[in-house]
Amino acid sequence: MHHPRAGMTTLLTNAWLLTIDDAMTQHANGWLQIDGTTITALGSGAPPTVSGAELIDCGGDIVMPGMINTHCHMGMSVFRGLAEDIDDRLYRYILPLERKFVTPEMVRIGSALAALELIEGGVTTVADMYYFETEVANVVAQAGLRGIVGQTLADFDPPDHKSFDEGFARVEQLASEFGTHPLVTPSIAPHAPYSTGLKVMERVADWSHVHPDIPVQMHLAESALEVNWARETHGKSTVAVTRDAGLLKPNLICAHCLQLDDADITMMSEHQVCVATNPRSNGKAGRGIAPVDKLRNAGLPVGIGSDGAMSGNTLDLFSQLAPVSMFAKLLGGSRKPLPAIDVVRMATIEGARALSLNLKTGSLEAGKQADLIRVSLVAPRLHPIYDPYSMLVFAASPSDVTDVIVAGRWLKRDGTVQTLEPKKVLRDAMQIAHAFQTEMKLIDRGGP
Amino acid sequence: MHHPRAGMTTLLTNAWLLTIDDAMTQHANGWLQIDGTTITALGSGAPPTVSGAELIDCGGDIVMPGMINTHCHMGMSVFRGLAEDIDDRLYRYILPLERKFVTPEMVRIGSALAALELIEGGVTTVADMYYFETEVANVVAQAGLRGIVGQTLADFDPPDHKSFDEGFARVEQLASEFGTHPLVTPSIAPHAPYSTGLKVMERVADWSHVHPDIPVQMHLAESALEVNWARETHGKSTVAVTRDAGLLKPNLICAHCLQLDDADITMMSEHQVCVATNPRSNGKAGRGIAPVDKLRNAGLPVGIGSDGAMSGNTLDLFSQLAPVSMFAKLLGGSRKPLPAIDVVRMATIEGARALSLNLKTGSLEAGKQADLIRVSLVAPRLHPIYDPYSMLVFAASPSDVTDVIVAGRWLKRDGTVQTLEPKKVLRDAMQIAHAFQTEMKLIDRGGP
Repeated sequence: MHHPRAGMTTLLTNAWLLTIDDAMTQHANGWLQIDGTTITALGSGAPPTVSGAELIDCGGDIVMPGMINTHCHMGMSVFRGLAEDIDDRLYRYILPLERKFVTPEMVRIGSALAALELIEGGVTTVADMYYFETEVANVVAQAGLRGIVGQTLADFDPPDHKSFDEGFARVEQLASEFGTHPLVTPSIAPHAPYSTGLKVMERVADWSHVHPDIPVQMHLAESALEVNWARETHGKSTVAVTRDAGLLKPNLICAHCLQLDDADITMMSEHQVCVATNPRSNGKAGRGIAPVDKLRNAGLPVGIGSDGAMSGNTLDLFSQLAPVSMFAKLLGGSRKPLPAIDVVRMATIEGARALSLNLKTGSLEAGKQADLIRVSLVAPRLHPIYDPYSMLVFAASPSDVTDVIVAGRWLKRDGTVQTLEPKKVLRDAMQIAHAFQTEMKLIDRGGP
Repeated sequence: MHHPRAGMTTLLTNAWLLTIDDAMTQHANGWLQIDGTTITALGSGAPPTVSGAELIDCGGDIVMPGMINTHCHMGMSVFRGLAEDIDDRLYRYILPLERKFVTPEMVRIGSALAALELIEGGVTTVADMYYFETEVANVVAQAGLRGIVGQTLADFDPPDHKSFDEGFARVEQLASEFGTHPLVTPSIAPHAPYSTGLKVMERVADWSHVHPDIPVQMHLAESALEVNWARETHGKSTVAVTRDAGLLKPNLICAHCLQLDDADITMMSEHQVCVATNPRSNGKAGRGIAPVDKLRNAGLPVGIGSDGAMSGNTLDLFSQLAPVSMFAKLLGGSRKPLPAIDVVRMATIEGARALSLNLKTGSLEAGKQADLIRVSLVAPRLHPIYDPYSMLVFAASPSDVTDVIVAGRWLKRDGTVQTLEPKKVLRDAMQIAHAFQTEMKLIDRGGP
């Protein structure tokens, strides 16, 4: 579990480098130099001679930027796959379960399971919003991931604040503990317009005005319930309510964005907000398809998110890539929308832009942080490879990721996670899951 | 590479058996006995004592029926991911490439790559239709897979017959060579109504009347082009044209079935045809969502297919399961349609029904053929498991399959394919892929 040392050099050689820079430069026989936390040089052909450098022969495997999961609820991993195929699950199951079981310990255990899965599947940056978020921040920091961790604010008697004053106090605590952390960025996360309300959204906007570098995360235009709330309560769209509150700014990361009309998209574009689309979560909910193509054509950065494991099941991005592309093609009635190359950009550099981290991560370029993954090409399902982006979107799977580096530190090496103890993480999660199962049965019998 | 010997007994113990029988019986601490090619007994708790039996401790892993890929073009694996994101690809790329490159050798090489991938990912039965189909049959037999192999008939100057007479001769040859093979069932495969024509479809129906046990495979209601052809040429739906030809029978496996109205579904139901849905291929084409829920509610067996790798990219079924469920939920606007348990049935016993093989395979029951897979539960993304069907549909991946048995023979054991040489198979495929790439460039320059 060594941290990168100043002056330590690593040279990856014999790699198929997908840089995801502006020109989408590829180096078929590439090398990449890491000094400490940073990519210092990269290119094709013979690598430079650096005395004392550790040389890693990548055997022709793909080396590319780590993926950016722009919307997650890591703590919910222990709820993975619970209460499937039921429409009224938020009020029937999720909120009661959360009120009863969400403690700092549960958040720690769930987030550790999530961190393990994220690293296994090649995610190097995650944007999270949940409760007891300092616990999440600690897990993310310990796992070595890059993260944006958002303390949630909501009015439905959530597990960690009885009032918005308490909620804001949690935000302040998170910001003061992690404000200068090299990998973890604190964030404020009003749950959604309907579950926060205009006044509190205004308070968040005022707070955000004083803390312009702190990202704001919010679910936006996710459901008919929310759209109806906005129309009935404010006589306008939920996006317009959010604009009136002063929240539509470049530091706002809007998750879902399913139920938008063209006026909403124009409004979002004028205010340069960022979007996190969650195709598997939305598809499973049967709620419709996000207009990703329109949002991108309006100039908005659209990253890809997994949502929580109770909604989207898995947290890697490989399982999201084909749905992103298929949904856009189904909406457009053609093969042309969202070609594979754009989907890979969304999973990397565009996700980084959506989180305002694109100067640090999301592409392999000299001067950027060394956040990268190695993808093994051993599986027959990956061949032939006419286009590596098509292969990544439609054939690769999280199990193909053998190595993960964040800020120069190996989080996974030769197939083995370095920063967490998988057996302990899984054992803790199983124990908690057992308690949930008992509770679910009580709920189904009309209790608890 | 040993074949099952009469009298040889294998006992799988400590398995989480998902039998997929009518009652969806599970044995959490299960055992299963294989004698020769056949499952002879299974249950929970202490396994029976059988002298001389080979005992395999499954370590709590899932053991379930092998998956049934009900629509594939194995030979096209060497075209995987070629010409993505282009609408006019059939006439611009596929047909010219096929005319120039599809030879018995190419079909053998492509089918071997497909067989390797199918085994790796847990498919035990595949329904194929392509050209030079005796080559496919030989590869399927050698790989040890169970297969329905269909000689294609088409009017667009296909690579292996200049006339339908020649095409029928190929069908006859296939039927006589493989008519009594224990694993490989020959089949006749008119390409689609628009590419076969009413007269030839009637000829197929007459032939089929004489060979009632030979399955007929056909693309049906796949595109607007086809639907328009039927309206313009015959003044009715493409399903009605197929009925008029006498092809709507229980031995007809209809692939795709995207563009159907309620009258078509009623017609298909009255004639008890079978359906193979191909969600990833259809989603990528942007052509719409098949009405799987309606077809199943009309009593039709609906299996899942991958289509060829040029359309659907991967041939395992794991990557199809989430799309099957999501598409039905999106069509229905609710979480309720096609719950995970039904999707797993579609991938196994219902796929077997669609191929009329359900007395032999598709579930773990005494007396059935031993066609089964072991799914490792080591990956953190699979946990917790509240419902194994949800886990299989939304979290498992082909890489989780460690063992594959067909008719008592191990095709994959402890992660290693037993019946093919992966390195040779991949090397041969790479060589052919190189030639295609050159040709594609010629086509793009206006040639060849």
